[in-house]
Amino acid sequence: MIVGIETGGTKVVCAAAHRDSPDRPVLTRRFPTTTPEETIGRIHDFVHEATSGDAPEAVGLASFGPVDADPSSARFGWITTTPKPGWSNVDLLGRVTPQGVPSAFVSDVVGAAVGELRYGAGRGTTSLAYATIGTGVGVGMVLDGRPIGGDGWPEVGHLLVRRHPADDFAGNCPFHGDCLEGLTAGPAVLARWGVDASSFAEDVRAERLAILASYIAQMAYSVVLTVGAQRFVLGGGVMQSAGLLEAVRAALPAIARGYGPASLSSADPAEVLVAPGVADSPGVIGALALAADLLR
Amino acid sequence: MIVGIETGGTKVVCAAAHRDSPDRPVLTRRFPTTTPEETIGRIHDFVHEATSGDAPEAVGLASFGPVDADPSSARFGWITTTPKPGWSNVDLLGRVTPQGVPSAFVSDVVGAAVGELRYGAGRGTTSLAYATIGTGVGVGMVLDGRPIGGDGWPEVGHLLVRRHPADDFAGNCPFHGDCLEGLTAGPAVLARWGVDASSFAEDVRAERLAILASYIAQMAYSVVLTVGAQRFVLGGGVMQSAGLLEAVRAALPAIARGYGPASLSSADPAEVLVAPGVADSPGVIGALALAADLLR
Repeated sequence: MIVGIETGGTKVVCAAAHRDSPDRPVLTRRFPTTTPEETIGRIHDFVHEATSGDAPEAVGLASFGPVDADPSSARFGWITTTPKPGWSNVDLLGRVTPQGVPSAFVSDVVGAAVGELRYGAGRGTTSLAYATIGTGVGVGMVLDGRPIGGDGWPEVGHLLVRRHPADDFAGNCPFHGDCLEGLTAGPAVLARWGVDASSFAEDVRAERLAILASYIAQMAYSVVLTVGAQRFVLGGGVMQSAGLLEAVRAALPAIARGYGPASLSSADPAEVLVAPGVADSPGVIGALALAADLLR
Repeated sequence: MIVGIETGGTKVVCAAAHRDSPDRPVLTRRFPTTTPEETIGRIHDFVHEATSGDAPEAVGLASFGPVDADPSSARFGWITTTPKPGWSNVDLLGRVTPQGVPSAFVSDVVGAAVGELRYGAGRGTTSLAYATIGTGVGVGMVLDGRPIGGDGWPEVGHLLVRRHPADDFAGNCPFHGDCLEGLTAGPAVLARWGVDASSFAEDVRAERLAILASYIAQMAYSVVLTVGAQRFVLGGGVMQSAGLLEAVRAALPAIARGYGPASLSSADPAEVLVAPGVADSPGVIGALALAADLLR
């Protein structure tokens, strides 16, 4: 039995699967992320139950961050400096993994990218980016089949984008004001319009979606230009807003203007910009896939 | 003997070295890039001379593009669709490499990134980006020691940047107008100011460098945010302009604003944004390094 764990900022998902079918967990559990002690204790309880007290064959962990995901680092597997109380400088991987058990560690968005590439909307591709646009904006990437991002920052969220002419919101990023996250994350939507992105009234919906879409499409353009991802999966709470994915697709051609690799210039944006394909928690499926890889 | 070849848009650099010292070529030759037939003929002549008629042990090739640098592609090693007359759809790697000789292929900027990482300004790092700001703008990357960019587009050149308030030039990119390349490449500098970047008069120099630097620093910020490079080497003809590298360093903190990985937020910009360290043609040194790797 292998175990995958996704430790998110608000909830933890644990799953156990047979090593040959990481995409089909036989046991799954969700619980809130509270203190490190309580949360890690619950993870241990899950592992114990899933393996009937034996050690798992392998553990995959995908965590909120910032994390240190550089295997050559002395703090590999740690959550580093997070504003989340109690979670700074926690050796999460070390405390979660039973001694002697092989383990893999990535950031939560990289875990989701792995899950989507292997078993979701990225099947058939080798390079994929996964964005979550929710409480914050994070992007994880798998390039040529390999997870990217040793230092684990969800940094793409803070790209500087060009402003939409109809958007006079100053942005709410504490660092940059109107960077991508400061303009499109859930708190920015709420601060700007007083409602979340799924609650726009019909008469203002199209314009608001076009504003958000112009920024999200710029991110997709920049990331695909920089790393050449073949597909870009757009997830997270804000992307649940009906019509937003379609608006992002509609905004892309006016940004790329025929330039770029096939995934930007000649393909149907609906082939490149896609919704998540893993029904539930691609991060934990990615964590299971990485655990299974350790046994090959 | 191993052979490294850098085929640039205007000139070719060929070098031969012993497999154990790819950074110290024993024979080097430069000639202009003309027709494919003539150019490839001269490359063959060089290889013949360097190896005294034997086959080389391995060949590394770093080429102008767009190239297909995806090893799984049927057109791996090809120059694809280039505006350069005669060079579209040329199987460059196949025509350059003697049959049965192991070979490596990357784009010219990726070759330069490899050369700089191994033997130049990137020594001691594992992730590096190399930008050339010259006739065009191209960026190559090595992440966790591995060259990135299977499809070989020099795409980062077309990032969309925020405009400097004192810059009213419309930009000259045929696709985007005022993208990064349309604002900072050599032809853009010449079109905007009538002189090249090394010939600014003293009374206008500081302002012009600040304009160029604001765009180049945005590129560095975006790329480091996206891929986490530890160092960013800035090369190419425009970067030869005295004071421009320093201006880019000076512009970075106002863009990053304390956010990002250590390479952006807390380090001295002079540690992150650096001049090339390979005195001459890092691309051909990178090509030699990749050739040597094939024999390990």
